[in-house]
Amino acid sequence: MDKIKSLKKLLDPKKIAVIGASRSEDKVGGIVFKRLLNSRRRLFPVNPKEIVIQGYKVTPDINSLPEDIDLAIITISAKACVKAVEMCIDKNIQHYIIVAGGFAEVGGTGIELENSLKQLAKKHSINILGPNSLGIFLPDENIDTIFVEHGDQALDRNGQVACIVQSGSVGVEALGYAANTGFGMRAFVGLGNKCDLDEIDFLQYFAQDKKTNCIGFYLENIERGREFLELAKEVAKDKPVVVLKAGRTKTAINAVSSHTGKLAGSDNVINGAFKQFGIQRVYDDEEFCDATKVLSMLKEAPGNRVAVLTAAGGYGVICTDFIEKKDNRAALTMAKLSENTKKQIKDATFSFTACENPVDITASADDLMFSLSLDALIADDGVDIIICIAFFAPPGITENLIDIIAEKIKQSSKPVIVFTKYGPFTDNSIKNLFYAKVAAYPSVGRAVRAARFLVERTRIGQQFENMLQNEHLPAFCVDHKIKDNLKSWLDTLAEKNGTDNSGNNDPDEFDAKKLVNLYSIKVPAGKRFGFSGKLSNEKLDIDQLDSANINPPYVLKVCSPKILHKTELQGVLLNSDKGSIKDNFEKMQKRFPNENILVENQTDFMGPEFIIGIIKDPALGHAIMVGAGGVLTEIYKDTSFRLAPCSVDQAMEMIDELALSPIFDDFRGITLDKLKFAKTISQVSELANDLGDKLSQLDINPIVYSNGEWIALDVKIMFE
Amino acid sequence: MDKIKSLKKLLDPKKIAVIGASRSEDKVGGIVFKRLLNSRRRLFPVNPKEIVIQGYKVTPDINSLPEDIDLAIITISAKACVKAVEMCIDKNIQHYIIVAGGFAEVGGTGIELENSLKQLAKKHSINILGPNSLGIFLPDENIDTIFVEHGDQALDRNGQVACIVQSGSVGVEALGYAANTGFGMRAFVGLGNKCDLDEIDFLQYFAQDKKTNCIGFYLENIERGREFLELAKEVAKDKPVVVLKAGRTKTAINAVSSHTGKLAGSDNVINGAFKQFGIQRVYDDEEFCDATKVLSMLKEAPGNRVAVLTAAGGYGVICTDFIEKKDNRAALTMAKLSENTKKQIKDATFSFTACENPVDITASADDLMFSLSLDALIADDGVDIIICIAFFAPPGITENLIDIIAEKIKQSSKPVIVFTKYGPFTDNSIKNLFYAKVAAYPSVGRAVRAARFLVERTRIGQQFENMLQNEHLPAFCVDHKIKDNLKSWLDTLAEKNGTDNSGNNDPDEFDAKKLVNLYSIKVPAGKRFGFSGKLSNEKLDIDQLDSANINPPYVLKVCSPKILHKTELQGVLLNSDKGSIKDNFEKMQKRFPNENILVENQTDFMGPEFIIGIIKDPALGHAIMVGAGGVLTEIYKDTSFRLAPCSVDQAMEMIDELALSPIFDDFRGITLDKLKFAKTISQVSELANDLGDKLSQLDINPIVYSNGEWIALDVKIMFE
Repeated sequence: MDKIKSLKKLLDPKKIAVIGASRSEDKVGGIVFKRLLNSRRRLFPVNPKEIVIQGYKVTPDINSLPEDIDLAIITISAKACVKAVEMCIDKNIQHYIIVAGGFAEVGGTGIELENSLKQLAKKHSINILGPNSLGIFLPDENIDTIFVEHGDQALDRNGQVACIVQSGSVGVEALGYAANTGFGMRAFVGLGNKCDLDEIDFLQYFAQDKKTNCIGFYLENIERGREFLELAKEVAKDKPVVVLKAGRTKTAINAVSSHTGKLAGSDNVINGAFKQFGIQRVYDDEEFCDATKVLSMLKEAPGNRVAVLTAAGGYGVICTDFIEKKDNRAALTMAKLSENTKKQIKDATFSFTACENPVDITASADDLMFSLSLDALIADDGVDIIICIAFFAPPGITENLIDIIAEKIKQSSKPVIVFTKYGPFTDNSIKNLFYAKVAAYPSVGRAVRAARFLVERTRIGQQFENMLQNEHLPAFCVDHKIKDNLKSWLDTLAEKNGTDNSGNNDPDEFDAKKLVNLYSIKVPAGKRFGFSGKLSNEKLDIDQLDSANINPPYVLKVCSPKILHKTELQGVLLNSDKGSIKDNFEKMQKRFPNENILVENQTDFMGPEFIIGIIKDPALGHAIMVGAGGVLTEIYKDTSFRLAPCSVDQAMEMIDELALSPIFDDFRGITLDKLKFAKTISQVSELANDLGDKLSQLDINPIVYSNGEWIALDVKIMFE
Repeated sequence: MDKIKSLKKLLDPKKIAVIGASRSEDKVGGIVFKRLLNSRRRLFPVNPKEIVIQGYKVTPDINSLPEDIDLAIITISAKACVKAVEMCIDKNIQHYIIVAGGFAEVGGTGIELENSLKQLAKKHSINILGPNSLGIFLPDENIDTIFVEHGDQALDRNGQVACIVQSGSVGVEALGYAANTGFGMRAFVGLGNKCDLDEIDFLQYFAQDKKTNCIGFYLENIERGREFLELAKEVAKDKPVVVLKAGRTKTAINAVSSHTGKLAGSDNVINGAFKQFGIQRVYDDEEFCDATKVLSMLKEAPGNRVAVLTAAGGYGVICTDFIEKKDNRAALTMAKLSENTKKQIKDATFSFTACENPVDITASADDLMFSLSLDALIADDGVDIIICIAFFAPPGITENLIDIIAEKIKQSSKPVIVFTKYGPFTDNSIKNLFYAKVAAYPSVGRAVRAARFLVERTRIGQQFENMLQNEHLPAFCVDHKIKDNLKSWLDTLAEKNGTDNSGNNDPDEFDAKKLVNLYSIKVPAGKRFGFSGKLSNEKLDIDQLDSANINPPYVLKVCSPKILHKTELQGVLLNSDKGSIKDNFEKMQKRFPNENILVENQTDFMGPEFIIGIIKDPALGHAIMVGAGGVLTEIYKDTSFRLAPCSVDQAMEMIDELALSPIFDDFRGITLDKLKFAKTISQVSELANDLGDKLSQLDINPIVYSNGEWIALDVKIMFE
C-alpha cells in the first residue's frame, strides 16, 4: 500500500478511537478527547472505567470497537501501550498516534517497549506516529490532538506551512509563538521517537499536499540521511524546505588524522549537504518560525538589493548596518536608487527628505507620503526587496498603513517585509499585519534575516535551474576504463601489502598519486625508490630519472603510509640538482633507514595552496571538502563541504563559498582556472564514490596551480 | 560652575517652567505638562493664550515668571525657540530642555536656528538639552517629560540603568520594550541634536550618581571622540558602559592607498577603540536592552564555563549549539560537571536523567528537582555561569520556580540567567522574573548572548587590573633621544624633498625603514644607491656592501615613494649572490631608469608574515592595526585595531584577537616571540603618536620573525 495515500487517513480520519479517553481534563486522555470535539469526526472513547465522556457513549474495551476505525490515539501509559496496539491490530486499525513517553528516551525497558512497537508496525504494515508524540494539529481540517496549550484559535485557517517537529517542548513553544504573532499553519506534526513514521514519510506527504507551500522540520537526528536529502531536493524544487537541526557543533567524526577530518565536524558536512540539496537551515525555534513565515507568505526575491523605507531615521541607519553585515546565508546590498525614484520621493514628501537609501521620510510623514514613497521604491528597477520600518508613533501615520502596505504587496512581485514594534502592542501589530497578509517582524535583525531567506531561496531556485540545464552533460568525461584500472590498482596494493608486515594497509604517497591520476588529476612526474618490502634496495639512478622525464630541481620525500607528517620530521628535501641529488638521497636514506624514497619534479606554482579532501560522515557517507591549504589550513578553516559525488556546478559553488574565492579572478595579475579546479573537485568526489565504504579519509594537500594545470603535490589516503 | 553639579538641577529640578504648556493633550506642551503633574515639583505653565491648565494658574509670558526657576522645558516651535531662550536667560534660568525638531536635522534655516542656540549656551553658560530632544524620565525622582507613550508605570522604581539616547524613535522603542518586559531604568535622557549637552556630560553625571550601576548610550555620532573614550574608560572601572553606535559599516576613511586603510573602515577602528577603553558595544535596541539589563542585574562571571539546566531536552541541545558557537564578544564553553555534581543531580531526580551538561531533568521533573539540581550546579567549582531553561508546561513545574531561582541568585555569587517563553504570556513571565530580580530572556540566543556580556565585562575588569599592575612600567624603554632623532630625520627628508620635483614628499622605503629603526624596530641591513635627485648616479660597489655587513643572498628593490606596488611591477629581485648581483642591478636600473635602488640582506624567516599599520581615523585620530600579512591580507581580513598609542598589554590583546594567534604557540614546532611582537606594535604606535597629524598612513608589511627578532621587511609611510 502506498504510504502517501495512507497518511491521508492519519491526518484526516473519519472515525477516531481515543484509547484512554477520560472525563478528567487533568488527564492527557481527557484533554485530547475534548480537543477532538470540534473536529466533526466520529469519535469513539475507549475506557473500561467510564460510561459517558462529554456526551459520548464510552466503549469499554478495544474489542468492542467497530471495524472501520481510521485512527487510534493511544493516551495510556507506555507499559499498557503495546498490548493496546496489538488489540487494535486485531480490529484492523491502520493508523496510530501514541502520546505516552517512557520509551527509548528513558533507556532500559523503555527501549524494549519501543522495539515491540517497531516490530508490530513492520509486521502488520500499520502506521505509528510516536511514541512520545505531541500529536497532530491541522487547523483547516479541524483536527487537533495536541494535549498542551497552543493558542490554536489564533492560527490562520488557510495557513500553508507544514511543521514537523521531533521534540515536544521546542515544537510547542514554536507553535505558541506562531499563534501569538500570526502564522499560516497548515499542519503541525509531533514526530516523537519515530519508531515507525518519520520525517521522510511526512516530507513525502506534504510535498503532494496542495494546501502546503512550505515545509519546516525540527529534527534532532536524521536516520535515513541520504534518503531524506534526495527527497528534500525534489520537494524543494516546488516548495521551500526549512530544517532546524540541533546539535550542530558536535563532532560526530572520531577519525581525525587527516586535515579534512579535523576541519569537518558533522556540522560542516551537514551545512554543505543542506546547501547541496536545497534545504534552508535554521538554528532555533524563533528562526524556524521567522523563516517558514516569510517563505510561505512571499515569493523569492528577484535579487539581493534592498531598499529601506522609514519614518524613524535611527532605525534606517541600524537597518543598513544589518543589511551590509557579512552573513553566510546570503549577501544583501543596499540598493542604489535611481534619480527618478529620488525625485518622486522628494516630490511626495519634503524638500529635506533624505532620498538616498535608507529613505528617511521623517516623523513628520503621513500615510500618503509613506504610500507614495513605497510606490516609487517598488517601481525602481534597481530595487529587489523593500524593508518598511513602520511605526505608528508619528502623528501622521495611522493603522491604515497596514492596508496600504498590504495592497502594494498584492500588486507587486517584489517582496516587502515590515519591521514594527511598540512595547506591549508589538505582538498584536504583527498579528494584524499578518491577517492583512504582510510578513512583519519585531526587530531589525529579524526583518533583515527574513530578506536573507528569500534571497537564499532564489539561489536555490537558480541552482535547480542550472542542474536542469546541465542535466545531459556528464560531471566530467568519465573514462569507462577507470573502474578496471581502479580494480587493478587495488589488486596491486593488496599484493604489495601481502609482503608488508607493518600492519598499515594504506597506500603510500606514490601509490596514492597513481590512484588520483587514474581520475585525471595531475601529479608531478616522480619515481619511488624502494627500501622496504618487495621494493627493497633500489639504487638512485639518474638515467632512470631522465628517462621518466624527472628533471631538476628535484624534490626528495620519504614515502611511507606510516609517516603522516613528513615536513615536521624533515622528510622533505627541496631544490636538489644533478650535482647534489646523490648526497641528499643518502642523507634521506640515513634519516629513514627502512623507508622508500620518492624523487619528483619540483613544481613552481602561482597563487595560494588549496586542499581537497574526503571524509566519511557516519550519517551521510562521503563528503568532499575544498579549502585554503598550506600551513594556515586549520587556522582560517576556510572550507566548503558537499556530499560525494558532487557535480562540477556544485564544485563551482563550493569554490565561490570560500573566503579565498576572489583570488581566482585576480592573484597578483594572473587568473587561476576555476572551472578546471571545479572539475578536479568533482573528479575526486567520483573517486571517493567509486572506492566506496573502504575509503575513510583522503587529503590532497596542497594542490596548486602551475602552468595552466592543477597539480596535486601531496596525496594521503586512509582506508577503513 | 561645575557641570556635574549643575546637571543635578536639570534632572531633579524644584521649579519647572513649561513654555508652551497647553490644556490640549494633543499638543506636546499639553502632554509634557500632564506628565509633570505627578512630579511633586512646582510647575509654571507659560502660555499667552491660556489662563488655567490642569488646575495651575498660567503665566502669560516668560517675563512674568519668578526668578528662581530651575528648568525651562520649551515645547514651542523651532522658530519661536531662540527668542524664548533669550527671554529665559533674562530670568536667570540655567537649564533647558528643547523638544521641538526643525533644527539642524532639516538643514537650511534649521541649522542657523541651532547655531543661535549653541551660541546662547556658550555665551551665557546655560545648559541646553536638545533641541529635538525626547526629554528626560527618571522614575525614582518622579520626573517625566517625555511626550510619547512609553509604559512608564511598568518600570521599576529602583532601577539602576541610565539610558542616554540620541535618536527619538530608537530610544522610545527601547523604552517601550524595557517597560514591557521589566527593566530597571534609573534615567532616560533624549540627547536630540546635542547643541550643548552631549554624551560626555551625562556620562560624567551618571558616573557619579549613586543610584546608577550601568550606563547605556545610543549614539549616531560621537563628536569629542577621544574625550568620550578616555572618560568611559574611567567610568567603566566601576560601572559597565554599553554603547549602541549605529552606522557601523560605513567607511569614514577616504585615503585607502595603504593596506591598513583598506582594512580599517571606521567600524573596525571603533570596535578596537571600544575594546581598548572598556566599552561594551551593541548593535540594535534589543541588544541594548538585553545587555544593560543583565549587566545591571548580575555580577560579572568568574569565568566562561556555562552549565545548562533544562526540563526540555531539545532546548538543551539548541542552547549548547549557541554556547559553542564562535562569537567575537566572548567565548563560552560548556562546563564539565564533577562526578559529585552528577551524582547529586541523579539522586535528586531520576535514574535516567542525562546528568552531563546540558542537564536535562525531563518534563517529569518538579520544582524541587529543579531546585536541587540548580544547587548542585551552583556548588560545582567547574561552573561559572548557569543558564536555566524554565518552562512552566511540565505538570510538576509551577510558578514557584520563579522564587526558587530568585532565592538561589540572592545566595550565590555565580550569575544565573533564565530563558523562558510561552506564546502570549512570554512578556509577562519575563516581567515577573524581573520583579523577583531574575534576568530572563525569551530566546535561547538572547539568553546565551547575555552570558557573553557578563564574560566580556569580566575581561574588561581583568584588563583594568592589568593596567593597574603595570602602571609603573613604561610601555617600552623610551630613549629620550628619539625625539631629537625624529626631528633630524624629518629635517633630512625635508631637505631631500627640496631637491626633488616629483611632488611626492613621502619618504621612500629606505628612509621609512630608518625612521622605524629609530623606534627600535629591526630592519634588514641595506644600502640605497641613488639615481634621482640629490643621490643621483651612485655606482653599485660590493665593497661598500661588505663593509655595511650586507651579505648574499641579496635582495634588490626599486626604492621610490611613487611606486606603491613594487612586486607587481617586478621591482623586487630575490636571491642575488656576488656573482649575479651586478647583472641584476643593471636589469633593475633599466627597468626603473630614474629611481633609486635598495640592496638589502635577504631575510630567512619562520612562520607567517604579519602586517602592522597606522591609519588616521577622522573622528578618533591614529589607530594601529596588526594583522595577517602577505598575499592574503585583504582576503581574510584577520586584523585587530586599537587607538595609538597603545600599551604592550593592549598589543598582546590585539594579537590574541587574531585568528592567527594560535600560531605563536606552535608553528611547526617553533614558538614565535609574542611579547617582542607586542612591544614592536606598541613602538609603532608611539611613532605614530610622535609624528602627529602629519602622518596619514603607515604599512609595515610584511614583518616577520627571524632568528629571534621581528624584522620589518617593507615599510611604507604616507604623509598628509
